[in-house]
Amino acid sequence: MSSSIKDFKEYRSKMNERILNSGFRDFNKFFALDNKAYYKGALDAKTKELMGLVASMALRCNDCILYHIDRAIEEGATEQELYETFNIALIVGGSIVIPHLRFAVEKMDEIFAANKKGETK
Amino acid sequence: MSSSIKDFKEYRSKMNERILNSGFRDFNKFFALDNKAYYKGALDAKTKELMGLVASMALRCNDCILYHIDRAIEEGATEQELYETFNIALIVGGSIVIPHLRFAVEKMDEIFAANKKGETK
Amino acid sequence: MSSSIKDFKEYRSKMNERILNSGFRDFNKFFALDNKAYYKGALDAKTKELMGLVASMALRCNDCILYHIDRAIEEGATEQELYETFNIALIVGGSIVIPHLRFAVEKMDEIFAANKKGETK
Amino acid sequence: MSSSIKDFKEYRSKMNERILNSGFRDFNKFFALDNKAYYKGALDAKTKELMGLVASMALRCNDCILYHIDRAIEEGATEQELYETFNIALIVGGSIVIPHLRFAVEKMDEIFAANKKGETK
Amino acid sequence: MSSSIKDFKEYRSKMNERILNSGFRDFNKFFALDNKAYYKGALDAKTKELMGLVASMALRCNDCILYHIDRAIEEGATEQELYETFNIALIVGGSIVIPHLRFAVEKMDEIFAANKKGETK
Amino acid sequence: MSSSIKDFKEYRSKMNERILNSGFRDFNKFFALDNKAYYKGALDAKTKELMGLVASMALRCNDCILYHIDRAIEEGATEQELYETFNIALIVGGSIVIPHLRFAVEKMDEIFAANKKGETK
Repeated sequence: MSSSIKDFKEYRSKMNERILNSGFRDFNKFFALDNKAYYKGALDAKTKELMGLVASMALRCNDCILYHIDRAIEEGATEQELYETFNIALIVGGSIVIPHLRFAVEKMDEIFAANKKGETK
Repeated sequence: MSSSIKDFKEYRSKMNERILNSGFRDFNKFFALDNKAYYKGALDAKTKELMGLVASMALRCNDCILYHIDRAIEEGATEQELYETFNIALIVGGSIVIPHLRFAVEKMDEIFAANKKGETK
Repeated sequence: MSSSIKDFKEYRSKMNERILNSGFRDFNKFFALDNKAYYKGALDAKTKELMGLVASMALRCNDCILYHIDRAIEEGATEQELYETFNIALIVGGSIVIPHLRFAVEKMDEIFAANKKGETK
Repeated sequence: MSSSIKDFKEYRSKMNERILNSGFRDFNKFFALDNKAYYKGALDAKTKELMGLVASMALRCNDCILYHIDRAIEEGATEQELYETFNIALIVGGSIVIPHLRFAVEKMDEIFAANKKGETK
Repeated sequence: MSSSIKDFKEYRSKMNERILNSGFRDFNKFFALDNKAYYKGALDAKTKELMGLVASMALRCNDCILYHIDRAIEEGATEQELYETFNIALIVGGSIVIPHLRFAVEKMDEIFAANKKGETK
Repeated sequence: MSSSIKDFKEYRSKMNERILNSGFRDFNKFFALDNKAYYKGALDAKTKELMGLVASMALRCNDCILYHIDRAIEEGATEQELYETFNIALIVGGSIVIPHLRFAVEKMDEIFAANKKGETK
């Protein structure tokens, strides 16, 4: 995994822990609802992560994009499925999405490369 | 089908025809790319319509919401699948999505009711 | 109260009931969190409703604007306090907020007028 | 001019007057800056109105779209110039702009038709 | 104060000076209106800064978030008041606000820590 | 040219090449439509780049802002024309645009400085 993805994950974990231990309990309730929205139900977890990814690209949030690409790949999303997902976001959201498409493709490549390296160990 | 959905479809058809016959050919190219983004590929058409729906709700566009609910139901989406999709949009986009959730549920109900009536004819 | 505000409130109640009785319980949890966010805490309820109003105007959601103006006035917000709130939203969000400022002032006037009429009964 | 454009202009005038006579003077200052932004300077007024139109379509504000189409046509914008402007907004903002493109083309047609009728009187 | 906050403030000051000395005087007028929107009026300055903060989080602008947290704390905002403000932004804007919530909590902690250190000198 | 602009251009080129060689051909079609939207037509290329710039600032996308400032200057845009364009974006989009105005002025200065240096060689 690239150092930027590792750094993001560490920062994300540290700050989420800080927030969930703040004593303001409604943050915990919102985070729980957020997690649960992507659990397998009538739709499977991979589909839901790809849906979260489309929304994240359309709303142009890089941290959210990275999170959902990572999770979608964990749930078995392929390169072709990710391209089709990126394309829906690009068409819905327009050229303003292109900088986030560059980011998304870069991070997808890094995650697939890290997984490949892991598999051959 | 409720008269408001029928009216929307007629207006949409009339104006799309106007735009596609304007002589400005890049409108046609964009509309073609837009249609194609939802064709079955590695992901099936129902999944793609639900993705278009999530993005439409997160970006808060009622015309787009109605279009994708209608298409998703044509592709076989169930009430439960639509609820899970609405919920992802609600969690990603927040309470600002609630007015669009009300609209989405209302239109979903109208379309399912119209289909049921059609089936029993 | 103007008929448009009454109609909005009836539609809102009917559809919220529909959503909260859908059987999809995470809608109920989100709606509960949403309500609770505006309860008196370290900040009083009027201040919180005015904050919800600023966010609604900056994000340009008329249904949300109407809801928070109505609630803020119930909590004792004055015309001057509402002007100052509208102005923050206008400065933060720019001229794109102006159509929503027109709507906000119109609805504020209607609610104050209805309250005045009520008082003199 | 279609009745919907006439109604919009009357409502807009009435509410702007209400706002500018509210006694909250910073509304007046913002409205003055807003008007001035489109005055002829190094860039001419038509170009500036088309710029306001692109921003209005990208931010998806129908009232703003109608206002800037009307003003751009007053400043001499042609159908072809408007198509090219609409197209930039469509490409930048994506398919979510399409409902606003339908609105924009409809209103452009109405204004050009009204002007033509006026000329032949 | 952390170096990142200090760097932001220096860059902000340098570029604001550059803009306000550009000779394009309407920038100065807008900046003056922007400052004035947060002056004590019917609502006090702390409340207005918290309103600016809610809007900044809902619109997802980190520079604006940092600015308004800093100003709100100067006006006496407490940790609990800031949590309640963050929560309104989170509920209104949804999970897409979470990366900005992480940023906001981090910067709040840094500012409170810097103030505490300052007090004990 | 400043190193940050050079770095951006290199990253942009590398990732665009990656995307356009992905084998997912609809990316290529969208990128082609995007390029073509700014070609000279009834409106000249400079005007169109300034329009792209207004939309990019209103939608708050720094990469897009840098790209269109660079292209607008290549097409002959002057400092005064850029100020007027920035101002329309600021008025339409509000104070939330200010961080992007700082970025835009900084990058404009760097590009004009680099061009001046180039001319005197």
